[in-house]
Order: sequence, then C-alpha cells, then structure tokens
Amino acid sequence: MSQFSLQHVVESQQFDRDLLELVFETTDMMKADLLGDRKLAKILDGRIMASLFYEPSTRTRFSFESAMKRLGGSVITTENAREFSSAAKGESLSDSTRIMNGYADVIVMRHNEAGSAARAAEISTIPIINAGDGAGQHPTQALLDIYTIADSFPEMKSLKIALVGDLRYGRTARSLSYLLTKYEDIELIFVAPSVCRMEGDIKKYLDKYQVPWREEDDLAEVIGEVDCIYMTRVQKERFHSAEDYQEAASKYILTPELVSLMKQESIIMHPLPRVDEIPAAIDSRPQARYFEQAQNGLYVRMALLYLLLQDR
Amino acid sequence: MSQFSLQHVVESQQFDRDLLELVFETTDMMKADLLGDRKLAKILDGRIMASLFYEPSTRTRFSFESAMKRLGGSVITTENAREFSSAAKGESLSDSTRIMNGYADVIVMRHNEAGSAARAAEISTIPIINAGDGAGQHPTQALLDIYTIADSFPEMKSLKIALVGDLRYGRTARSLSYLLTKYEDIELIFVAPSVCRMEGDIKKYLDKYQVPWREEDDLAEVIGEVDCIYMTRVQKERFHSAEDYQEAASKYILTPELVSLMKQESIIMHPLPRVDEIPAAIDSRPQARYFEQAQNGLYVRMALLYLLLQDR
Amino acid sequence: MSQFSLQHVVESQQFDRDLLELVFETTDMMKADLLGDRKLAKILDGRIMASLFYEPSTRTRFSFESAMKRLGGSVITTENAREFSSAAKGESLSDSTRIMNGYADVIVMRHNEAGSAARAAEISTIPIINAGDGAGQHPTQALLDIYTIADSFPEMKSLKIALVGDLRYGRTARSLSYLLTKYEDIELIFVAPSVCRMEGDIKKYLDKYQVPWREEDDLAEVIGEVDCIYMTRVQKERFHSAEDYQEAASKYILTPELVSLMKQESIIMHPLPRVDEIPAAIDSRPQARYFEQAQNGLYVRMALLYLLLQDR
Repeated sequence: MSQFSLQHVVESQQFDRDLLELVFETTDMMKADLLGDRKLAKILDGRIMASLFYEPSTRTRFSFESAMKRLGGSVITTENAREFSSAAKGESLSDSTRIMNGYADVIVMRHNEAGSAARAAEISTIPIINAGDGAGQHPTQALLDIYTIADSFPEMKSLKIALVGDLRYGRTARSLSYLLTKYEDIELIFVAPSVCRMEGDIKKYLDKYQVPWREEDDLAEVIGEVDCIYMTRVQKERFHSAEDYQEAASKYILTPELVSLMKQESIIMHPLPRVDEIPAAIDSRPQARYFEQAQNGLYVRMALLYLLLQDR
Repeated sequence: MSQFSLQHVVESQQFDRDLLELVFETTDMMKADLLGDRKLAKILDGRIMASLFYEPSTRTRFSFESAMKRLGGSVITTENAREFSSAAKGESLSDSTRIMNGYADVIVMRHNEAGSAARAAEISTIPIINAGDGAGQHPTQALLDIYTIADSFPEMKSLKIALVGDLRYGRTARSLSYLLTKYEDIELIFVAPSVCRMEGDIKKYLDKYQVPWREEDDLAEVIGEVDCIYMTRVQKERFHSAEDYQEAASKYILTPELVSLMKQESIIMHPLPRVDEIPAAIDSRPQARYFEQAQNGLYVRMALLYLLLQDR
Repeated sequence: MSQFSLQHVVESQQFDRDLLELVFETTDMMKADLLGDRKLAKILDGRIMASLFYEPSTRTRFSFESAMKRLGGSVITTENAREFSSAAKGESLSDSTRIMNGYADVIVMRHNEAGSAARAAEISTIPIINAGDGAGQHPTQALLDIYTIADSFPEMKSLKIALVGDLRYGRTARSLSYLLTKYEDIELIFVAPSVCRMEGDIKKYLDKYQVPWREEDDLAEVIGEVDCIYMTRVQKERFHSAEDYQEAASKYILTPELVSLMKQESIIMHPLPRVDEIPAAIDSRPQARYFEQAQNGLYVRMALLYLLLQDR
C-alpha cells in the first residue's frame, strides 16, 4: 500500500487510476463498517484534525468533522481562520501552517485564495486536505462525485455526462472535469448560459487527454442521451440584468417533464445546496442520487483521513 | 419502556404525565451518576450530536454539549447555521435536515422561526431536539423548570405559582404554562406590566384544561401566598418610552423586603440570565433556586439524549 | 505534591520558584510522553474544558484545546462569549462563571478587561486559567517563554535578556518581566520606540526585586552582549504618524546582519505572529527558537491542565 500512500490532498490531478481505486475501495470499506459492525470506530483515536476555515462553509466542515469523529478522532475547529493568520495581523500562511503542525495531526483547509492548499502543503509536516480554495479546486468533492458515478456504473466506461448550470465559476464542475480525464470513453456535454460557460483551460485539458466534449444550449436536446446529468446552481450575481437571469435560470430547471425524457438507468447528481434547479418533486424519481451523493462525501472523507493518517 | 419511547423533543404539549415521569426518573439517575460513580460516562460513546444554531445561544448550546460529552458522545457544532442553509443560499430546511441526517445521530436545533423544529422533525430520520424556535417553544427549558419545582414539591399538587415579568414575549413562561396543565390543582398568577401580559392563546389553553389563573399588577399583593415565584427579565425594547420601562422594571424587582414576605418553604426561580430583577443579595436566601435550576438543565438534557439515543 | 497544588492560573506573580519547578518538570514529562509512548493520552478522559473567549484568539484557543485533547479530555468552546454574558444581556461575570461551573471541569478564559480572570477565580468552584485579560496578563505565555529560556540555559543564571519592540502595550513582555524576577542574576535590557517604552509599574517591580534593567535605543548596540533577544511586534496604530511608524518599525527589524553579531549560543524568541520584525531568512539560523517556543506552549498547557485537574 505504501506505493500509493497519500501525503496531502491538494488537487484532482494528483490522483491517478491506481490511487482512485485505492480511495474508492477504502470508501467502500468505510461505508460497510459504518452501516455494519463499526470495527473502525476507534481507528483514529488520539488523532487531532484541525478544521482551518478561512471562510465559513459549515456543510463541508461538518462532513469532515463527522468523518473524523466516526473514526474516533477529535477535532479543533475555526470558521474564523482569517483572524488566526495573515489577514488579521500580517502573518504568512507559511507561519500559520508551521504553528498548526504542532497542534494537530491533519489540517483541513478552506481558503479564499486559489493555490493556498498547495502552498501550505509545501511546508507542512502533517497532511493538508484542500476543502476548497477560492476559484481553484475542491478535490474531495470531485472524488465523491466520481465515487457516486462509479457506484451506478462500476465499469466507468462509455458514459455520456452532461454538466449543467454555472460551469465557469463553479469549482465542482471544474474539479470533476479534471478527474474524468482519468477514465476511458467518457464524453462530456456542457450545458450552460452564455455568461457562465466552461472556461478554455478545462477545454484544452480535455483535448490534451482526448476526452470528447461539446457545448449545448438546450437541456431538452441532450437529456435523452446522457447517462448522468450533473446539475449546478446558476447564481444571480453572474448576470448583467435580472431579466437575463430569469431567462437563464428557468432554462436550466430540471422539470418532471425533462426527467421523463431520461433513460431509466441514468442518474441525476447535484453538489447541493440546490435552490429551484431541481424541484422537490424529482426527489422520489429513481434517477435522483444527490442525497446519496452528499452522504458519499462522508464515506470518502473517512477514507481519505484513514489513508492519510494510518501509517503516521 | 418502549411504549414511552421518544422520537423527537419538539414542544411541551407532547409530554404526558407518564412521559414526564420517565424523563424525571431518568434525570434523577443522570444526576446521581454524575455526582456519583459515573457509570454512564461512556454510554453514548460513538454517537454524534449536531448543534445546529441558526442564532447564537452559547449558554443553551453549552448545556446540551456538556450533557452529550458527560455521556461520552461527541459533538459537531455551529452558531452560524443560517449560512448552512436557506438564508444564505436559498436551501430549504428540509434539504438541510436530510443532509444533517447523514452526519449525526441527533440534532439540537435553535431557530429564529416558530415551527421550524416541528418541520424538521417531520422529515428527519434522526431525533430533533428543539432548543428554542423564535417566539415558539423552548421545551427543554420547560422540562427543567418543572423538574426543579417537583424537586421541592414532589407531590406537584396544590401549588400556587406566580409568573412574573415579560409573559408575552418570553418563551419560557409560555412553555412552562403549557406543561403545568398536566398537573392537578395548580393555580397560576400572572404578574406582568401591561405591555407584556400573558397572551390569550395560553389563557384559553389553561381554561380548556381547567387550570385556574388570574392576573395581578402588584407583586407585593401575591408574594405571601405563592409556593413558587418564577421571575423573568423585562426587556427595555418592549416599552414605548424609557419612563414606562423604568416604572415597570422597578415594580418587578424582587427586593429583600419582598422575599421576607415569602413563605419559608416557597422557592424562587429564574431562567437566567438575570439583570436587576433579582438582586445578588437574594442568592443566599433559602428560597433561591435559580442556579440549581440552571444546573438541572444539564441533567434533564442528559436524560433526553439518553432516552432518544439508547435504543437506536 | 499537594503543597504546590494549583487552584487557578491567574497571573505570573502567583508562581514561586518551587511551583515553576513543578510546572517545568511536568512540562518535560508531557513533552516526553507526547513524543514517546503516549501513556498519558487518556489521563483526562471524561473531563471537560470550557473555552470561554470574550474576544477571538484562535491560536491561543487551539493551543489549549489541543493540549486538552492530547490528554484525552474534551472541550466546549465559544469565541462569542460576550453574547454569553454581560455585554449582551447585562449578566454579571459572577453569574456567568457560576453557570459554567456546572457545565465544565476547568475554564480557559480570554477577556477584554484586565482583572476578569481574577474576579472569576474568586467565585469559581472549578479552576480558571487566564488566557489573556485585556491589557493585564497572559501568564501561560510567560510560563512557556521562561520554559523556552530554561531549555537553552538550564541554570537560569547570569543571563542578559533584551526585550525588543512594543513593551508598553504588549502583554507578553510585561508578564515575562514579572516572572523573571523569580530568578537570580538576570539583567533586562529594554529596546523600544519612545511611544511604546516599558511602563513605570514594571520598572518599579524590577527595582523592588533588585533586577537590574536599562533602556537602550539601538538594537545594534546591545545585540552582541545578550543571551536572549525577545522580539515583539510594533503595531502601527500606536504611532502618531505613518512616518514615525516607518522609522520605528525599520529600526526594530532583526536583520541577518544583526543576527551575525549575536553570540553563538544566544537565542531569538518571539511570541508570534510576526510580521516583518524577523525576516524568514532568520528561521534557519541556529539561534532561532520561536517555532519551538510556540510548540512549548502546547506542552506547558498540557502540564497546567494536568496539574489543575489530576486530584479533582
């Protein structure tokens, strides 16, 4: 196992197929244990996780903290980390990280600036997990997304996946695209309002790894052919006028009529929270997987904490 | 025991005499254990309580979290739950609750809107405890209040109880009134400034259960006849003028002279925090029970967590 | 051991040489255990520490919470304690303390008013640890500072110590000065801009205990003769003009050139966070001790928690 051993979780690209395999097998093990006889309930006893959130994200924080506690570890936590560091008193991220190294065994960091997790990882003597850094990455979200897709399509082959909504500013769609290049015979369809189309850097990255992609304007056109539709929220503040927003938002709502056009074995995902883009009426449809997906976040994070801390 | 088994703690009215009996017996057990040999110190080991506070209330939160930890459980906590949910991103309370169901074994919820706890309980697969919802209820406060009264008057019969201060906006006086209808031969005396008299809905509820009540203006008139005086804080912002407030506030101060008129075996309660309405000089009087009452909050919450989680 | 037993940690002056000895021996034990076989990892199992921070100080809070958890204890925490008490609803510190006495086994308190910890300790039935009170004291910082000096100079004799930077408003320099009077043959050199010179009360205290001190304006003049240089941050807001600040700040920067003038066996300390006053280039110099010093904070706090709670 040492050959795959993880040091930090900083970005989606760091995971190759072997490492993904290991993470997902460990995730299966965590899920089975938590729903079963809980033999791993004390496996991280005595270990301390520091939740260092430079901006609040209670949901992500809870998911990590629950994961740590389900394995018997304990947590020190702040949603006020800006005060802890540079923003308040001019301290460098490097100094903050060194200090934290003395207080904890693993750091989960949410930061407002892209690249922060990578910079912290460079000097940290304990593992850093990137829990989202600005417009950058959110790799554990991408891992739970892939895990959820693989749960329905274990072969992870010949899949058409539509990413819908805010593809420009949404970290999740970006991180997921990176990670999907690790698999064969995946086709991506981007369905977004013109103001929040997928950026060129991702498109180039996909081209480089020969992942076919295309852009579509109309959800109804593609919904019948996809295996997975990954919805994201379109945020009002991206639009120039309220009218533009209204038009776009209504266009990217997954109505019951649209869902009826989907293949029986296809799945609907969403990183949550949702607003109107998936009506509550869809929750009981067999394709709906978004609550399961959120729950998978717990299992994936348990797996990562276990892999990062087991041999230390 | 299963016949009384609790699912959620949402409102005072859900408790009948049998269930109250069970809660109070369990509370006695918790108190004896904590002050004694602490055999229950690990009884909730491995269980996670989520403190989901949509508005901060550090004291209530600490009381619940201490209770959970005294039984060996662990806690994930936020005083920032608005950000977690609807207010920030438009998510429904229902979605937030479903997500939390995957992270914890019990949810303690403080919300700014009346009825929130009940709505969460409707869809939650894990127990919800209402830790106060807006102008609504604060049932665990009512339970610890009754427990404190019963500690001095185990028969819980033939008692005259004066509720004093802000009876209109104070959740505690309202929740306590509901719960007192479960007992026989209780008489309530409401002593409040005209701007914050007890509301009609409670009066009707008392009439329906044939609990005699009357309103009095002057504390001095009734203080000699009551078994229990339940003081609450009168808040400045309820009054139209500073003069009105001054007049009312000074009228509802429990001075040493007033306490001297009380029966020897009567008791003084207060949900705390207090400001001027009970001077510190009263703390050493034999009737003073308010610090004991706060401490009982810990035992009652330990009992509730135990009852909610033991068989799950 | 009972003869030295600690009740509270309120101010530096409360520690005599015997008690300091005990604290430092216990600190050595904690450090050895944490880096070694961790036999003490459950020694405070079942105990609850309340972090009651009336103003946020995530770093100090994390240091205490990590210490408590390294010994198996658990924590209830708020950085929002003002809401808990007087500032929000007019409650007295005395009432707040009494309530907390029922929820926890030890209170770590950071307060904005000098003297708060002492007032809380007067009425508390459980130990109070002062984690900084306004312009008052920060005794655990002083303890870890002395421990760090003693680590390099076990004799704690014939030492010249320069305190540099903001000596007037900086709590740490003040608390450290108090504590250094317990040792023999210590000489203090104060190097500060004119607007933030060491206050008269400390100078008088040093005179009373016959600790020689002098003031110097120029760091370069003294750096060759000192055994320890204790740097602190000069804060912009103390100065009347931006120019004055610039002049002062640049004058109290520990440049590589200055460090080259230091004795080989001398040490550089800083309570951290630093800004520009110690450039990162100094970190690799053999004299640099500030990260070790921060780490010692964990061990000292473990020792204090152990000493305060072991016999209770």
